[in-house]
Amino acid sequence: MTNPSLLILPGDGIGPEVMAEVRKIIEWFGTKRNMAFDVSEDLVGGAAYDKHGTPLHDDTMAKAQEVDAVLLGAVGGPKYEALDFSVKPERGLLRLRKEMDLFANLRPAQCFDALADFSSLKKDVVAGLDIMIVRELTSGIYFGEPRGIIKEGNERVGINTQRYTESEIARVARSAFELARKRGNKVCSMEKANVMESGVLWRDVVTEVHQAEYPDVELSHMYADAGAMQLCRWPKQFDVIVTDNLFGDLLSDAAAMLTGSLGMLPSASLGAPMANGRPKALYEPVHGSAPDIAGQGKANPIACILSFAMALRYSFDLGAEADRLEAAVEQVLADGKRTADLLGEEGVTPVSTGEMGDAVVAAL
Amino acid sequence: MTNPSLLILPGDGIGPEVMAEVRKIIEWFGTKRNMAFDVSEDLVGGAAYDKHGTPLHDDTMAKAQEVDAVLLGAVGGPKYEALDFSVKPERGLLRLRKEMDLFANLRPAQCFDALADFSSLKKDVVAGLDIMIVRELTSGIYFGEPRGIIKEGNERVGINTQRYTESEIARVARSAFELARKRGNKVCSMEKANVMESGVLWRDVVTEVHQAEYPDVELSHMYADAGAMQLCRWPKQFDVIVTDNLFGDLLSDAAAMLTGSLGMLPSASLGAPMANGRPKALYEPVHGSAPDIAGQGKANPIACILSFAMALRYSFDLGAEADRLEAAVEQVLADGKRTADLLGEEGVTPVSTGEMGDAVVAAL
Ligand SMILES: CC(C)[C@H](C(=O)O)[C@@H](O)C(=O)O
Ligand SMILES: CC(C)[C@H](C(=O)O)[C@@H](O)C(=O)O
Repeated sequence: MTNPSLLILPGDGIGPEVMAEVRKIIEWFGTKRNMAFDVSEDLVGGAAYDKHGTPLHDDTMAKAQEVDAVLLGAVGGPKYEALDFSVKPERGLLRLRKEMDLFANLRPAQCFDALADFSSLKKDVVAGLDIMIVRELTSGIYFGEPRGIIKEGNERVGINTQRYTESEIARVARSAFELARKRGNKVCSMEKANVMESGVLWRDVVTEVHQAEYPDVELSHMYADAGAMQLCRWPKQFDVIVTDNLFGDLLSDAAAMLTGSLGMLPSASLGAPMANGRPKALYEPVHGSAPDIAGQGKANPIACILSFAMALRYSFDLGAEADRLEAAVEQVLADGKRTADLLGEEGVTPVSTGEMGDAVVAAL
Repeated sequence: MTNPSLLILPGDGIGPEVMAEVRKIIEWFGTKRNMAFDVSEDLVGGAAYDKHGTPLHDDTMAKAQEVDAVLLGAVGGPKYEALDFSVKPERGLLRLRKEMDLFANLRPAQCFDALADFSSLKKDVVAGLDIMIVRELTSGIYFGEPRGIIKEGNERVGINTQRYTESEIARVARSAFELARKRGNKVCSMEKANVMESGVLWRDVVTEVHQAEYPDVELSHMYADAGAMQLCRWPKQFDVIVTDNLFGDLLSDAAAMLTGSLGMLPSASLGAPMANGRPKALYEPVHGSAPDIAGQGKANPIACILSFAMALRYSFDLGAEADRLEAAVEQVLADGKRTADLLGEEGVTPVSTGEMGDAVVAAL
């Protein structure tokens, strides 16, 4: 039997640094648990642009299609701000999502007990918070045609199109219902059906899938603006939230920030099952490339480590090992270990990126 | 000289109740300050649909075009949920915005000292918060064509289009810069220029207007997802935020909720100057029609009263009177008067909608 395969794309900024710590975890699994992964590595984002003039080389794209899972660090940075829209580092990420057809973006928003004080919210509002936002990731306004900047008379006009098909909505709804069954059994679907026809279709299809296939799950609907409010007011009312690409972008980022654990949060982007039954999958931390602290050993590797934990759970069927890794992270935090982003308490000296990785390995 | 004219559209749910309290304020201005307004009243939303089969009758639309300012309560309710998309109560509001061309939606997010405890955020994060979100209101994805639900093969497809012209962006940017000059002199513009061409044009045009006309104002740009995060983390970093219709919908609602003063917040929607120099204008509370508490005397009239204060400031050139009315509201809150939505403190008995209105009049 062949080992499960993993393509590592460290990317830009702090990407390579946090990825080095995941390598330690992978090594631990190999030597201590006899679970070997076939790991390969390649460029993405600005790093790929610097070498190839494109944020994602065709060879890398092909490799990503073949492996069991892709783990990505982060893309972008000020160095690339002035680039043409079509070669921006983000385009590499968007191409991966689109060509691998990773339609379900899983964004856990979880508050780590040891870090509840970092939230801007009151402790009782966030302590114990654990919600899952499922964001549609391969359609909607980021991808729809027509798009572009055109000239009309002597005016420029910027155009983007939101297009959602029935099947695109149905499949991401199914992902949300499946997840809910393993969690709190509640799904809240968010759109703007009061003012957008794509939202009307969204609500209708989610309702149809619910009635036909998941009547046992509790389903509610909320306008996305009200959803933004409710997330800020009392996020614990939610279990699984399912929403489109654009709303999901804002809502999942807001929810992540609310937990106080922003630098700590992982994500998974899943597609349809491959021949081996595993879903196409890409895992990445929620945080960006943080160019301001890159190369200084200050970055927090936990989000990337927890992204690998999600890979263990969703790609490698190693749920118990994922639990174990997550427990190790909680342990390290409970012990008071903090990278510089998590300071605030008096008298705590920060540990470096590498020391944090070592501590997690030690706790395993 | 003719009196300034005001069209009152109470709408649905608690709309009529809160509007009754504004009438008391208007009366006070007439009798005590000798400032008479020509007030007329009409139907909008579900109320208009019930009578005319349309959420906004043409006669009402015509009247709205003629007056100096429109004051609206709220539209919608569960009774109208099953209506066809084209006659939903919200369509009345959208038609007013579009035909009056009210492109600049001013959404103050302000934390009232006496109410800081109602925020889900920590007190130091919100105390003293005072930001202004300027949302583009007549274009973007709520209005762009093509739109609708079409059939492709045997699939339904939901379509909406975002279209922003240069001049649409420039005029709302100007509104934001003008407001900033009277406040903290800072504007932050939010879009997704990394993934949407309409966002690229948005950023370019805001930058051009800034350089050509407002170089004295401090301008920054932020991706809207990062903006959602920063609003939740440390909202006091902002002074004026300018953003498009869709992002503005979510961001302004989230910001309103963060202040803890949601039921308290007003809004103004302004268009181009009319022949008399006054901008076309519609004022409305941020809260909805709250059908669950309608008719029970529980509604908080303050948001609607403060919307009238915005009318005094932006439509009637009565800035000092607006200040006076706002101070009266603060006074009443500091005195401990609370409608039922603001309970929470032990031993406080709520006042009714009418008692709250009377208290504000008494404090004037
Ligand atoms: C980098 C960008 C393309 C991306 C998005 O907007 O989807 C990011 O914000 C994210 O959420 O992963
Ligand atoms: C009622 C609806 C049309 C409206 C909108 O989405 O614009 C509302 O949410 C608002 O913000 O005023």
